[in-house]
Amino acid sequence: MSRVLVTGGSGFIGRTALAPLREHGYEVHAPRSRDADLLAHDTAARLIAELQPTHLLHFAWDARPGKYWTSPENLAWVEGSLRLLRAFAEGGGTRAVLAGTCAEYEWTDSVHCVEGATPLAPATLYGAAKHGLHTIAERYAAQAGVSLAWGRIFFVFGPHEHPARLASSVASALVRGEPAETGAGTQVRDFLYSEDLGAAFAALLDSGVEGAVNVASGEPRPIRDLVVALGEAAGRPDLLRIGARPPGAAEPASITAAVDRLRDEVGWRPARTLEQRAADTIAWWRQADTGGRG
Amino acid sequence: MSRVLVTGGSGFIGRTALAPLREHGYEVHAPRSRDADLLAHDTAARLIAELQPTHLLHFAWDARPGKYWTSPENLAWVEGSLRLLRAFAEGGGTRAVLAGTCAEYEWTDSVHCVEGATPLAPATLYGAAKHGLHTIAERYAAQAGVSLAWGRIFFVFGPHEHPARLASSVASALVRGEPAETGAGTQVRDFLYSEDLGAAFAALLDSGVEGAVNVASGEPRPIRDLVVALGEAAGRPDLLRIGARPPGAAEPASITAAVDRLRDEVGWRPARTLEQRAADTIAWWRQADTGGRG
Repeated sequence: MSRVLVTGGSGFIGRTALAPLREHGYEVHAPRSRDADLLAHDTAARLIAELQPTHLLHFAWDARPGKYWTSPENLAWVEGSLRLLRAFAEGGGTRAVLAGTCAEYEWTDSVHCVEGATPLAPATLYGAAKHGLHTIAERYAAQAGVSLAWGRIFFVFGPHEHPARLASSVASALVRGEPAETGAGTQVRDFLYSEDLGAAFAALLDSGVEGAVNVASGEPRPIRDLVVALGEAAGRPDLLRIGARPPGAAEPASITAAVDRLRDEVGWRPARTLEQRAADTIAWWRQADTGGRG
Repeated sequence: MSRVLVTGGSGFIGRTALAPLREHGYEVHAPRSRDADLLAHDTAARLIAELQPTHLLHFAWDARPGKYWTSPENLAWVEGSLRLLRAFAEGGGTRAVLAGTCAEYEWTDSVHCVEGATPLAPATLYGAAKHGLHTIAERYAAQAGVSLAWGRIFFVFGPHEHPARLASSVASALVRGEPAETGAGTQVRDFLYSEDLGAAFAALLDSGVEGAVNVASGEPRPIRDLVVALGEAAGRPDLLRIGARPPGAAEPASITAAVDRLRDEVGWRPARTLEQRAADTIAWWRQADTGGRG
């Protein structure tokens, strides 16, 4: 039986891959970060020796909103990821998928990200750390006989998202019956629901496809579409204050993803629309809100 | 006074930078690797706390001939280098130069390597590890307020070179009066004498120039020119057996370096010719040979 080690498996993103992996037939091990701190020097070797995974799905990273873009912990995560990959390979692992980011691409004002074509020129330490890690990991895996894919994540929303982030702050305000202030939201982004992301990564791991693969919906939308969809799903579009917040620092007008590799080689595409996933997000926040009060 | 920490300062390359750094007015600290193992988790923090360097010149890496191209220790050196750079920055360091490699460039059959223009597509783990490290280090340094340059080393020969490598194997055979067998040596390379490399790195550190800088002579020559120069310098061209060794694995016909940045921005160029440096190499081997027997 194939045994997969999932890191970051209790986080917003990693947790969504567990059920799809089981559906693909994997024996899933997702140690909590408090039990398996990959920044500690000997954790990776111990984990690999204990679990002897055949497969690796590595999500764990610094993900603190507002901090992870520039945190020096990005360096520590590169170190921890290299130790993990080496221990995995030397322990006999055969297939690994690591989480990359759209922030590896050069963000011009309007960028359509195509794997192997769009320049990789990260403007942030987070993007640089991920891109540098990929450069090293890809070459190491090739010579170590590990099949490796690098799934570049774009813009994700859904259950368990940190309350400081856009969709969760809007959704939680709406379910509390409070106004939700946002910017104008004219920027175009590729949004993917977190459970879809998990399903896509599970499919990618299982596919054997190698190299960089954008993990995205392929259906770019203005940010305000997501905000409006959340308002409609909550039945409270009246609470939306779109444009109430001033524009932030200059952000690209459009960041979109080519999904040819994900759709045609991995064979995965999202089954539901942004509007349906906005409704799922509202439903989760309603339940979380009740649970929190109850 | 400026205080520089030199890593790898007892190695073939790093040792050559010490005297030039002192000539530039630096207080030089070059702990031996046995006293300061940068692959151990806490060494970097301890070294920085002890020495409180204002400057860093980082050469230390796996350099075992025939092994370093593919050794998994390349991953450990990335980790150690990231820890070192972070400890240096957090300890108040202001200026760092790290050793890169011409193997970061994409080696076509004939490649002229120009910083910022020639594609970076390393074919080896060594090249990928260095390139990945540079990607991360450059962005980290920029946000941490450390001025950083990345000196890409090409083909180096001179005293203390490992005896398994070309120039040293030829020179040591010649001074022993034994035949020196080589390949045809038609490939064109940029050769730099090790002491010149050290002087160039010291000048680079002192210059404040940032980003990737090729550290090379700018005077490419066929490999056989170096072999012939060693034969002439030893007074034993009769012992040369050029072409006696079969061609190895396919190697690029020409790997040359643009040295505009080094010459015009750093203001450094080699003062002596390949022939003069071949004579210096022979002189060193004669003395080493005598010393070894005596």
